[in-house]
Amino acid sequence: MRAEIISVGDEIISGQIADTNAAWLSRELADRGIAVVGHTSVGDVADEISAVVRAVAARADVVLVSGGIGPTHDDCTREAVAAAAGAELVIDEAALEHIASIFAARGLEMPRSNAKQAAIPRGADIVRNATGTAAGFRVRVGGASVFVLPGVPREMKAMFQEGVTPLLPVQQRAIATRVLKCFGLSESVIAERLGERLDLDGVPKVAFLASEGVISVKFTACAATRETALGLIRPACAVACEVLGDGVFGDDEDTLEAAVVRLLERGGKTLAVAESCTGGLVAGLLTNVPGVSRHFLEGVVTYSNASKTRLLGVPAAMFEAVGAVSEEVARAMAAGVRERSGSDLGVGVTGIAGPSGGCDAKPVGTVHVAVAAAERTIHRRLTLRGARQVIRDRAAKHALNLVRVVLQAGA
Amino acid sequence: MRAEIISVGDEIISGQIADTNAAWLSRELADRGIAVVGHTSVGDVADEISAVVRAVAARADVVLVSGGIGPTHDDCTREAVAAAAGAELVIDEAALEHIASIFAARGLEMPRSNAKQAAIPRGADIVRNATGTAAGFRVRVGGASVFVLPGVPREMKAMFQEGVTPLLPVQQRAIATRVLKCFGLSESVIAERLGERLDLDGVPKVAFLASEGVISVKFTACAATRETALGLIRPACAVACEVLGDGVFGDDEDTLEAAVVRLLERGGKTLAVAESCTGGLVAGLLTNVPGVSRHFLEGVVTYSNASKTRLLGVPAAMFEAVGAVSEEVARAMAAGVRERSGSDLGVGVTGIAGPSGGCDAKPVGTVHVAVAAAERTIHRRLTLRGARQVIRDRAAKHALNLVRVVLQAGA
Repeated sequence: MRAEIISVGDEIISGQIADTNAAWLSRELADRGIAVVGHTSVGDVADEISAVVRAVAARADVVLVSGGIGPTHDDCTREAVAAAAGAELVIDEAALEHIASIFAARGLEMPRSNAKQAAIPRGADIVRNATGTAAGFRVRVGGASVFVLPGVPREMKAMFQEGVTPLLPVQQRAIATRVLKCFGLSESVIAERLGERLDLDGVPKVAFLASEGVISVKFTACAATRETALGLIRPACAVACEVLGDGVFGDDEDTLEAAVVRLLERGGKTLAVAESCTGGLVAGLLTNVPGVSRHFLEGVVTYSNASKTRLLGVPAAMFEAVGAVSEEVARAMAAGVRERSGSDLGVGVTGIAGPSGGCDAKPVGTVHVAVAAAERTIHRRLTLRGARQVIRDRAAKHALNLVRVVLQAGA
Repeated sequence: MRAEIISVGDEIISGQIADTNAAWLSRELADRGIAVVGHTSVGDVADEISAVVRAVAARADVVLVSGGIGPTHDDCTREAVAAAAGAELVIDEAALEHIASIFAARGLEMPRSNAKQAAIPRGADIVRNATGTAAGFRVRVGGASVFVLPGVPREMKAMFQEGVTPLLPVQQRAIATRVLKCFGLSESVIAERLGERLDLDGVPKVAFLASEGVISVKFTACAATRETALGLIRPACAVACEVLGDGVFGDDEDTLEAAVVRLLERGGKTLAVAESCTGGLVAGLLTNVPGVSRHFLEGVVTYSNASKTRLLGVPAAMFEAVGAVSEEVARAMAAGVRERSGSDLGVGVTGIAGPSGGCDAKPVGTVHVAVAAAERTIHRRLTLRGARQVIRDRAAKHALNLVRVVLQAGA
């Protein structure tokens, strides 16, 4: 089974964006036992797309093409793939109705240009688009099954999972993976600790991926069935959980915020958040978790000292004495939001995200995080590195992680 | 002049990393007047690399290959490109000395495996690596000049700038681009309106890119100098700004939140935000902009009705009468946060992000946004589609956009 991916778009070959679609599709196919052997990107030029599709289809069994099926004049993937397949384009009536219904739901007439999004090569199978207007399709080119998907990542992913997956050839071998998600330990520390107990190149294979402060430890094994492959992974995962302790917050697609909400649910606890330098990111992450409303009472973004005093009761004299970025203020913010909202736990975050505002004693990246519970308030001082966005993101994750650790310890 | 890029590495075709090297090289080549027409990625398999290099070299004038020239057993790009060129590998003595000197400077003996990094095809020109050990080279394959560079981004970039640039064919033309960023208009409406006034396939060429609710309209022109190319773009941009009106919020790397902060600065205005369904995202976006602290007074995330009443003064009877997700509550939140914080503008957002909580009258995706100013409060009802995260993101952007439109209108 030989799979290849083609990404279409001037924005890719001109370097305006990196091709994350191809990477995502490769991971998804690998999870289904199909190894991708090549990626090709091509601009919005029909002849070039046709030539690439023909060349790739001549050597592959499965080809996924994404991009260039939008409503505008530069979208020409439909025409190009139809030409490669030697078929004419025809309007699929069900797809056309679907597009019209999306506009109707918004109280709009469908622009004429959108009708072309319902065109597929004669003889192709439609792949429905639940989240957008453009219809996808599957068509035979030479000996290969060619799938055509949207370029918008959200639509592409939804269509792949709902529409493409059931049509993929069933594999004789299964690849199973499991990911442990870690926070608060560096990649090299994790690799060292695991290397002492596991053969990282053995079965299962162990790989590490650092992304936005979270380290994913990925275990992969291959066997006749998925169950057998998972059985090969399980003991290694158990060893990893043991040596990494509370550095592990979840698995697979888990997030820190989902882990926090799960622990709040388990303990029947409520939470409130007071943020300065993270400016709403902690609340924003938490409220992304469905069902959080039973546990998240409120958040305040107290960017000015005046609002820290008015909304949280931080004494004005404290700013004079120790400064807004200090352990004392973080603790007072956490305690203040807990008390005023009546929550079980309160979180306070104050720091210097930069690029300006730092000094020798408190350089950019200095962040104080506090979590207030009934008996005591826990505090951490962080020294973060990177651009403003990175410092803010990491500070928010450290705050969530501190809540998690406090809840796991049974606060 | 036809240029293509080949990226080598299992980590790319397996999806472990996105191919940012190809994007970077494309931008650098475009800045030098060379348009890249294709990207290809291939794994660490010598035969596959040879086949790809031969196929690409048969149709291109310049080919940049990055990756697979390290010291480890899976690095085989040298052998593969030499095979494609029909030349044997020979050790370049100067390159070998350079590698040995790097190890000597660290007080180390050169491991034997590193010697292979000095091998280049017979007849190739060496491209020096100032920052790492691996020697790059240029070799003729068919009619094409093939450059081989390291895959480590830092080394690849340095080698491209210092070693490759002087060897590139001098271009008689320069490519210039400009992007207009739009919000609140659909891609098809933008294309239709522009199509009535401009030849989208003419000079400059006009392309569209939708990403997370923001539509980028990209103008590209080619001329003898960058200034001339920009001169070709300017009138088309002016036409686009005219027909799209306040649908355009900025250009190139601009964001909605940066546009809002710029307008707040220009008008000397302050802002406060009250969020329910967006849960801190509006505040989080705004506070990502450096220098926002002079204009952003505070944010509150009032997830519960009780907190909407306590922190914003929304009358409890209003929830009974019209529900928390309503125009009335959005207006009361905006007015409440404005009044209590003493800001010039107040923003209120309330809605149903899903996946549950919707009903026939107020389905998931129903969001009310209000902006309160001194004289009046503006309100918009939105009907958004997609997953919880998408609805929240779009609601936050619509809120920012409404602030922008109000500020542009001179609130």
